[in-house]
Amino acid sequence: MHGSELRVAYQGVPGAYSEAAAGKAYPNCEAIPCDQFEVAFQAVELWIADRAVLPVENSLGGSIHRNYDLLLRHRLHIVGEVQLPVHHCLLALPGVRKEYLTRVISHAQALSQCENTITKLGLNVTREAVDDTAGAAEYVAANNLRDTAAIASARAAELYGLNILVDGIQDDSSNVTRFVTLAREPIIPRTDRPFKTSIVFAHEKGTSVLFKVLSAFAFRNISLTKIESRPHRNRPIRLVDDANVGTAKHFEYIFYVDFEASMADVRAQNALAEVQEFTSFLRVLGSYPMDMTPWCPSRGD
Amino acid sequence: MHGSELRVAYQGVPGAYSEAAAGKAYPNCEAIPCDQFEVAFQAVELWIADRAVLPVENSLGGSIHRNYDLLLRHRLHIVGEVQLPVHHCLLALPGVRKEYLTRVISHAQALSQCENTITKLGLNVTREAVDDTAGAAEYVAANNLRDTAAIASARAAELYGLNILVDGIQDDSSNVTRFVTLAREPIIPRTDRPFKTSIVFAHEKGTSVLFKVLSAFAFRNISLTKIESRPHRNRPIRLVDDANVGTAKHFEYIFYVDFEASMADVRAQNALAEVQEFTSFLRVLGSYPMDMTPWCPSRGD
Repeated sequence: MHGSELRVAYQGVPGAYSEAAAGKAYPNCEAIPCDQFEVAFQAVELWIADRAVLPVENSLGGSIHRNYDLLLRHRLHIVGEVQLPVHHCLLALPGVRKEYLTRVISHAQALSQCENTITKLGLNVTREAVDDTAGAAEYVAANNLRDTAAIASARAAELYGLNILVDGIQDDSSNVTRFVTLAREPIIPRTDRPFKTSIVFAHEKGTSVLFKVLSAFAFRNISLTKIESRPHRNRPIRLVDDANVGTAKHFEYIFYVDFEASMADVRAQNALAEVQEFTSFLRVLGSYPMDMTPWCPSRGD
Repeated sequence: MHGSELRVAYQGVPGAYSEAAAGKAYPNCEAIPCDQFEVAFQAVELWIADRAVLPVENSLGGSIHRNYDLLLRHRLHIVGEVQLPVHHCLLALPGVRKEYLTRVISHAQALSQCENTITKLGLNVTREAVDDTAGAAEYVAANNLRDTAAIASARAAELYGLNILVDGIQDDSSNVTRFVTLAREPIIPRTDRPFKTSIVFAHEKGTSVLFKVLSAFAFRNISLTKIESRPHRNRPIRLVDDANVGTAKHFEYIFYVDFEASMADVRAQNALAEVQEFTSFLRVLGSYPMDMTPWCPSRGD
């Protein structure tokens, strides 16, 4: 199942960064474009796809709370992670020069990540948001627009027959997005290679709960790679856990923690048993092999 | 100094949410529009303004890491916080009906926060990103555009003479942005009202440092209102602290913590002394009165 037969749903069109993440996680997979993140979840739930890739955090933008909400509202399991350096290029039709441009189109987030560079390049352009980066490249090519550039990946240039006018136009070069891969069934955690486990928990009140939870990991020498509190005052959230399907719960805070241990590890099992004692809601989003790719931003700072 | 004489720099043009945050923090202040966040910092540093307001997190988008970077690179102090419900409206010239629209313009983030609602309204429009929400409203009015709507605040409609076509078009009604207010000098922390203190810390390695830091607060019954880890692998960051001005440091992780105590409180002083023992970098961003406004999303979920 690891490779050519696998169908992997992603948000966007061919050439999207999510497609690249799918290809990094599952080489030679059949990547299936979806127009929304929710559709990618549904594709897996309805057996149209075997996996979905979902961006969950970016080094500049932070955690994408909306996509964590999707993880909580659906029943899919995290089965892997992929870290992908984001390297934006300015793309235009062959023969088009910077001076011809009156408009730059891309995903809203990409436009804002290239804001200063576009100004510094002296481009006198309007910026227009479209659904995704690769979709912008496709649009320029399909409509033969000679006054419009797209911000997208080098791969999108290749796919849609565009030239790379400027290579690497993001304002901050250390731009990395972390994706998780999702499946209907959890994978069987192993202990013969580095695993990571992602959990979400919440408690109704009590200030020292977080401390108790962290002690469950610290006393067992389990490292945390992510911890994040998220205020949830008065905001009901539709959670899906094993005991309560689709009930709306109120929490003052919810917490996201990733720790470096496999659920096959007795230390992790004991730690979670302890965490459950202290919290009123606990869900294991998944236990999965760590992405061990060295961290390599597209260029030095 | 609390009120009419104060000059408060914000990013955007009149009618921006940041201007509303400035007005909530300092009623009757003179709000000074700046075209970039960095310019708002400089305005305070160069005595052009007395305060700056800076959005640091949003309930849907999460923490804005780029603005935390600005806090670390500059020497300003957090002197207050403001929580502002974000309530987007669809604005157009008087007499313009939804059917006339071919284009919606706004800040990239606002466009993406209203994506589904725009689709559900049956609007057949292109979306175009501009620098800020209120700037979009100003542009529609100044150019007398009858085919273009702006997504901005009700206050922007009023300022630029536009009508509210649809009131509240954000996809998720629980959309709240937290701003901090900044000054050249820290305020003298007090203990006669609830204060919050924001710190940033980092350590070169060691898995139990976070746990030790949290124990410094837990054992003193100090509640945390925010904790967030941020991976910084191989990414140098220009930090300004009292000992090292502008040196670039490497950390594997940096942590943001907000705790509910004033630095005038002996418990907070003792906790920080302990935190300093365990960390290689520690900076107090500010100790400031908490925004005690009840959390009120623009409408129920």
